[in-house]
This record gives sequence, structure tokens and C-alpha cells, in this order.
Amino acid sequence: MDAAAATLKRAVEYDGRARWTEAQVCYQEGAQMLLDAVKGTELLFVYLVWSRVLNQISGVDERDETKRLRLRQKAEQYVTRAEQLREQVERAKRRGEYQEQRRIEDGSVGHSYESVFGRFLDSATTTIRVLDPYIRALHQVQNLVRLCELAVRRCGRSLQTVCLLTTRCPKSPRMPDDETGKTQQDVWLATLQADLRERHGVTFDYVFSDTLHDREIQLNSGWLIKIGRGLDYFKPPSSKLSLGAFDLDLRPCRETLVDIVHVSKVRSTT
Amino acid sequence: MDAAAATLKRAVEYDGRARWTEAQVCYQEGAQMLLDAVKGTELLFVYLVWSRVLNQISGVDERDETKRLRLRQKAEQYVTRAEQLREQVERAKRRGEYQEQRRIEDGSVGHSYESVFGRFLDSATTTIRVLDPYIRALHQVQNLVRLCELAVRRCGRSLQTVCLLTTRCPKSPRMPDDETGKTQQDVWLATLQADLRERHGVTFDYVFSDTLHDREIQLNSGWLIKIGRGLDYFKPPSSKLSLGAFDLDLRPCRETLVDIVHVSKVRSTT
Repeated sequence: MDAAAATLKRAVEYDGRARWTEAQVCYQEGAQMLLDAVKGTELLFVYLVWSRVLNQISGVDERDETKRLRLRQKAEQYVTRAEQLREQVERAKRRGEYQEQRRIEDGSVGHSYESVFGRFLDSATTTIRVLDPYIRALHQVQNLVRLCELAVRRCGRSLQTVCLLTTRCPKSPRMPDDETGKTQQDVWLATLQADLRERHGVTFDYVFSDTLHDREIQLNSGWLIKIGRGLDYFKPPSSKLSLGAFDLDLRPCRETLVDIVHVSKVRSTT
Repeated sequence: MDAAAATLKRAVEYDGRARWTEAQVCYQEGAQMLLDAVKGTELLFVYLVWSRVLNQISGVDERDETKRLRLRQKAEQYVTRAEQLREQVERAKRRGEYQEQRRIEDGSVGHSYESVFGRFLDSATTTIRVLDPYIRALHQVQNLVRLCELAVRRCGRSLQTVCLLTTRCPKSPRMPDDETGKTQQDVWLATLQADLRERHGVTFDYVFSDTLHDREIQLNSGWLIKIGRGLDYFKPPSSKLSLGAFDLDLRPCRETLVDIVHVSKVRSTT
């Protein structure tokens, strides 16, 4: 509801400033959110009622109406299936049995963090725990930055804490002029920590393990995202100027399996 | 309709492979696209019919129903406004008078290319002309890469050509071992050109001007996006590891004005 209110507030604001196309997008999205809030499953009912009532209206072009009827029937069919799936997922979650697997093929595209697990990051998520032994090299820490960007955008103000468990990089150079023995890896993680705290009010804790092997992203909403390779499953972009350098959905991937399960209680990392 | 078909194909595919949550998202999106295709303005009608019919149903909790009625009424109101705006925009476009302005305030966020003009990139766009004197430094060419990523994602296979008119960078170093006198800027643009052609089937032409000053993005669908600073209106990220390094919606901007107008015929660049 907060999201709907915010969107509609923006709509009214845009409208007042004659930013019509943006206002239009926001009004529609906000209205949809309001309607979704009324009750998700009513969506199907809407379509059913709609098609029945429409059929009773006179003066509609016959041929056009046949086409529209066919489209509506198809749409209803798909909405029904979507509803069934939602219930199926909910039931499986309650039984603690929900599980899905995605195989990312070598060289395939369309597997950004957003596409792979963005749909599980929502306002029910307040804590994200990342277990990944390889948050060591610059591009790996940058993967974590991207995950945080996605989380901040999708979870909004709900997000409070991000925890990382990783391993120390034995080759990470020690920082000159630093007597505490900090390495480059420490500095990178501390930079992200400061940014998350100061600009986004999110606490970022990181702990090093000597023995960690598993890769796992735990959401305290109960979702567990297990990517075989951890966050580092993208091939390097062919250049800094090829499409996919920024948009991970356009970046070819390395083969890996993604398992997503729902557990009633997220396991402790210690 | 192609987009709906593709989304629903994916839904069925996911469904068959027990990737339920993804299937669910695709079914819903696809069904919505089908319904939108039937006729955009029917959306309002759906909501109106829905609320009237729902009111006749017995056995609904009284208090709950009052709340839902209020939400529905609000939603209808917003959808009505969105419809009015859509018609208003269409009328203004026909008269050749459509214009909107956005002021990006210094230090503000939420102004990625996607947010600022993503809604105008669609399957009606086959050619994009970018006039920007400052596609010179690496980060400026990378801005262009980001624009191309957005265009490829939003316009899909419709996109055929991207044309750039910019100025030569007098400081761009000449490439060693190259007798044709190519500079670093040439090589960067040629890299993007090769990537767009080979991986995405898009032709990228670039031409240098000695006198160009204006900044403008021309879509052959008639939209003209004029950003005072051109593509380079973002502040540098505070570090390579701060949020906003990748997601431009999280990156603070420099003050600039954005004017978006619709012209019946896109002006020629020559």
C-alpha cells in the first residue's frame, strides 16, 4: 500500500507539472497496485465478469468481437493458470516443500540477478545473508554491489541488514601506510559498507571464514537462493564497450544451476 | 502481440519445467498484454463493471467491503485520469504540439535513461539518432553503450539503426602501430559498432562534426528527447563500489533540463 501511495503521489505531482506521459504511467501502475491490494485473486474474477458482461452488450462489430472473445478466453486461461500456480507455491511453502531449479546454460543471456531472483526480493525482506567464498576480486565485490543495488530498489526501506560471509583473499595486497594490516579486499568491503550505511541506512556486516565452501543467498522471508557458482556466474564482457557491460541481462553466462527453495526458518550462518 | 506471444511461450515453457514462480509472472504479464491488445481503454470499463457487480454480491463482510469500495473508487479515478492523459497526449501529438519538461535537480537520483525516456523506446522505434558533441571520454562512450543496452531491450528486433553525430576529441591519443591515424575514440566507437552488428544485428554509424553544439536524441517514431547536458548528466559515482556505480537510478545527477517533444517528422541531421 505504501508503494501504491508513493506511486500515486508521484502521478499527481507529474500531472500538476504537465509531465503527462510519466503521470500516465504512474496513475496506471498505482491504480493496479491499489486493485492488487484489494485482493490478488479478484483479478481472475474481473476478467470472467468482464467477458460475460461484454458479450451482452449490443452494437459490437461481429467479427471484431469474435477476435476479442478469443483473446479474452486465452487471457482468462492464462490468468487461471497463474492463480493455480500461486496457490500451488503457497501450499508447497506451507508444507516446507517448495523448490524450483533453473539451469543457466553456458553462453546464454537473460540471467541478471533481477531476472533470476528479483521476484523474491520484496518488502518482506529485512535481512539478506550472502554466503559466497569468492567475494575477493574487484569484479566479485562489484557483483555484491549490484546485488545491493537490486535489494535497495526492490525491498525499499524494509531492508535493514546485509550480511556477507566470505573467505580472505590471500593475494589481496596490503594497503600501504596502514598499520592495522588492512588489505585491498578489506578496503573494498569497507567502502561498500560506508556507502550502504550513509546513503541508504542499511547495515552491512562482513565476516571471513577459513573453511566456507557453500554458496547461498538467504532472505529472512524464507527464500533460499542457491547458485552453484555463487554471484560470479557471468562471463567477462568482451570489452568495456560491449552491450552487457552494464546490463547483466545482456551478458553471456557460464553454466550453473540455480536452486530456489522456501524454508520455514532460515538456517543460522554460524 | 508478438511480445505477448513470446511471454506466454516462456510461461508455458517454465510451467513445463516446474519453474512455477517464473511461470506465474509470465502468465500474468502475458495475459495483461493480451487484454491490453484487445483495447487499451477497456481497462477502465473492466474496473467499472467489476465494482458494480461486486457490490451486488451478498455475503461480503460489511467493513471490509467499505474499505474495498473506497480503494476501487480511488483506482477508477486514477485509471480515468490516466486515460484522459493518454488521449490528451495523442491529441497534442496529432496537432504537433506535444511537449513536456523535466528539471533534474543537482544531486537528485532516479533519473536513469530508463526512467527519463525509456517509455518512448518501443517497437515503433527502428532508428535512433544521437546528436551529442561529447561522446569522447571513456565514460561518455559508456553512456552511449548504456543507451544502446536500453534500446536493444525495449525496442527488441524492431531496432535497426543507431546513428551518432559527435565531435572529435583533440586529446584522444593516436593508436600505436596504426598507420591510418586512428585515435582511441575511433577504436572505442568501432568496438561498440562491431558488438552491435555481430551480437544484435543493429547498424551503428558515427560521424564527426566540427561545429556541433546541440544535444538531442531523435526517435523515428517522432519523439525528440533533448537533455541540456546530453547523455553525460550523471555525477561520477563516489567510488567503484558505491550503489549507483551500475544502477543509474541510484546515481546522483547534475542539474539539467529535459525537454521531450513529439514532431510529426524527425528533422534530418544534415
